[in-house]
Amino acid sequence: MSPNRQSTRAWARKSHPPLRHGVKDASGRPKPLVPAPADHRMWAVERWLAGRFLRAMNSPPIGFVLWDGREISPSAQAPVARVVFHDRATFWKVMLDPDLRFGDAYSDGRLDVAGDLVVFLEAIHRARAAAPDTWSAALLRGLHRGQANTLHGARDNIHRHYDIGDDFYRLWLDGEMLYSGAYFADAAMTLEDAQRAKLHYVCRKLWLRPGETVVEVGGGWGALALLLARDYGVTVKSFNISRSQIAWARRRAKAEGLDSRVEFVEDDYRNITGRFDALVSLGMLEHVGARYYREFGRMMDRCLGPTGRGLIQSIGQDQPTNTNPWIERRIFPGAYPPTLREMTDLFEPWRFSVLDVENLRLHYAQTLRHWLQRFEASAGRVAEMFDARFVRAWRLYLAGSCAAFAGGALQLFQVVFARQGVNDIPSTRARLYA
Amino acid sequence: MSPNRQSTRAWARKSHPPLRHGVKDASGRPKPLVPAPADHRMWAVERWLAGRFLRAMNSPPIGFVLWDGREISPSAQAPVARVVFHDRATFWKVMLDPDLRFGDAYSDGRLDVAGDLVVFLEAIHRARAAAPDTWSAALLRGLHRGQANTLHGARDNIHRHYDIGDDFYRLWLDGEMLYSGAYFADAAMTLEDAQRAKLHYVCRKLWLRPGETVVEVGGGWGALALLLARDYGVTVKSFNISRSQIAWARRRAKAEGLDSRVEFVEDDYRNITGRFDALVSLGMLEHVGARYYREFGRMMDRCLGPTGRGLIQSIGQDQPTNTNPWIERRIFPGAYPPTLREMTDLFEPWRFSVLDVENLRLHYAQTLRHWLQRFEASAGRVAEMFDARFVRAWRLYLAGSCAAFAGGALQLFQVVFARQGVNDIPSTRARLYA
Repeated sequence: MSPNRQSTRAWARKSHPPLRHGVKDASGRPKPLVPAPADHRMWAVERWLAGRFLRAMNSPPIGFVLWDGREISPSAQAPVARVVFHDRATFWKVMLDPDLRFGDAYSDGRLDVAGDLVVFLEAIHRARAAAPDTWSAALLRGLHRGQANTLHGARDNIHRHYDIGDDFYRLWLDGEMLYSGAYFADAAMTLEDAQRAKLHYVCRKLWLRPGETVVEVGGGWGALALLLARDYGVTVKSFNISRSQIAWARRRAKAEGLDSRVEFVEDDYRNITGRFDALVSLGMLEHVGARYYREFGRMMDRCLGPTGRGLIQSIGQDQPTNTNPWIERRIFPGAYPPTLREMTDLFEPWRFSVLDVENLRLHYAQTLRHWLQRFEASAGRVAEMFDARFVRAWRLYLAGSCAAFAGGALQLFQVVFARQGVNDIPSTRARLYA
Repeated sequence: MSPNRQSTRAWARKSHPPLRHGVKDASGRPKPLVPAPADHRMWAVERWLAGRFLRAMNSPPIGFVLWDGREISPSAQAPVARVVFHDRATFWKVMLDPDLRFGDAYSDGRLDVAGDLVVFLEAIHRARAAAPDTWSAALLRGLHRGQANTLHGARDNIHRHYDIGDDFYRLWLDGEMLYSGAYFADAAMTLEDAQRAKLHYVCRKLWLRPGETVVEVGGGWGALALLLARDYGVTVKSFNISRSQIAWARRRAKAEGLDSRVEFVEDDYRNITGRFDALVSLGMLEHVGARYYREFGRMMDRCLGPTGRGLIQSIGQDQPTNTNPWIERRIFPGAYPPTLREMTDLFEPWRFSVLDVENLRLHYAQTLRHWLQRFEASAGRVAEMFDARFVRAWRLYLAGSCAAFAGGALQLFQVVFARQGVNDIPSTRARLYA
């Protein structure tokens, strides 16, 4: 049994505890929690509930199709897609706890979406974005404190997402195994080209000079660190707490003869030591948690030399809101996309100067369209590796992320910073686009 | 008597209350507050004090030359410039309250700087920047609450700086009278070219379409509003509370036949009404005060349509520190350069998405070099309009600002934002540099 296979089972056990009403029911029709007298009164209640539910979401143009074929479309617009509930119990559960239950019911195949999944989810995001802010939402933002990603907890969280199998990620990531937003310098670019463009764009933003030293925080499968050493003549120390990614990256470094200039270290960002000219971190800050940003900043302050600079790319949001509980529990434990304000905790206490912030959310939406397409093309293979529920859960996660970036619920911040007073930098950005 | 002449007198009265030890003293040598026995003990005390003073500033490479020609240069490095104290009383005053007294003593000619004034001031900024952060400084930042720029107070503050005479600003600003950082797309650009480049750069970042409406907050002498109407085919409403700037801008609009498409309104940002496609504000936020940013943001939320976007350019800083008291009292009452974190108060409560932040501090340093050069070339004319003290005060202010940008103590943030979920935007910045 390969380590990946073990991880696969761990994923299934931890992420999807058996539901109480029994997935294993042979008939395939779960025992409803709510009695189902097909009477008019019940229908009236459900219609009322569905209407109220959709109004609470600021009336997105979506409809519901119930288990008996009846349709509810309270929106004034024609629905762009419909949720098809396969049984009454699922309908009630989703109405009462949609944030968690919708994802679970979708994964279990107890409901379907008739229409394009991304379009459906984007419609929901856009309706929510257009809703006026409420005082209760503002209050909740004020109370928000983020996740507790301790040293041990962080390792466990990362293991649950990234160590479920390199073979799985190979099916739908690009050849370089980059699992963060690409850069479509040209909209028609392939995913491989856009990921390569992203790496070079990041390196250009750091105006690296041969012989410099770079520390990478969260190196994934190693593509950026290897490219830095190969194409930019720098030496790299790349930190990661995903064991299987580190193993993969070390194999690549050895195979390419770069292992003398790239060191992959299995350790937490809090334990980074040494002094470097530049720091880079792509798609890792999301796993740190806002309450640890000062600690992250302290590490940067400790590790960057007097002319040090850095680039941090992170999924972000416009206002602090908690991660959707389904994503948090089933897909990405411990993840939190920061606001720009929260990100300033990385820089301000250490007097770093922020030089450049670029919001690349539309590039991440495009990246996710590519991933989703590749994922669908390999859905049969994924089902063999895991099960049908896993396929549906990841489809929803990828489509939901795509919709969130396309609809503006998620941002992608690429932030360049430097020690205060460093003047040996290009005075305009023009050469990034030359 | 022209209104400008009146303003000139108001400036002299308000900004420079007569010092207690008597500027009008005929002999030119003020009565020292401290007795001057030219004994060794006094010299030892003064040497100790100067050394302590410079160490407290983290030992910048500067020296002191005392009234009797003796020199104190405690720095290990050769001094890049020397402060020449013309009398003992001035030395003691500057040692005891440098933030305010240095500027006053320099303005009064009671001390001089031997060497390049910008180089001297930059050395001080760089030494301070290299100093480790102290807990007391961190505490002070925590207590910082910013200025009280009420409706009435703001008008008075703006009047004191901007209404001291168009003729004065004409002597050293570019022909378009732009009093904010230029954009040196090419380092060799003239000031006129760089100011024009700045205006077009700002317009390109707003991806304006002909027929759209733009609101400008703090329009100065009107150059941007006129260019928007002339070259970008939009209609503009430009707000300002500087009466003499508004009068100037209206004359230009009429002369150029643009008065049907550009309206200059003499009113506070808090009173802006109407609905616009875009908002622009250059070098005005510095006068708002951090505690009013939510109010500023509320105005933006009220005034921007569903696909609205905006650009705000403001002097900024890496950590919240109060404006130097001399600048605050003598030059720019009510001014405060925000941190990026403070600026998020403009956007986050209204769910605006920040799309782009560019730090252009080196461009402002270059702009100030041009201004200072032109100012020096017109120093005789300025002295005729005001007096020698005014010339020295403004020389110190311009040189000090240049040094602060060059040394990294001040930043220049240009922030582009939009309503959440606006996708009809260029996906890369490449066309800004095409």
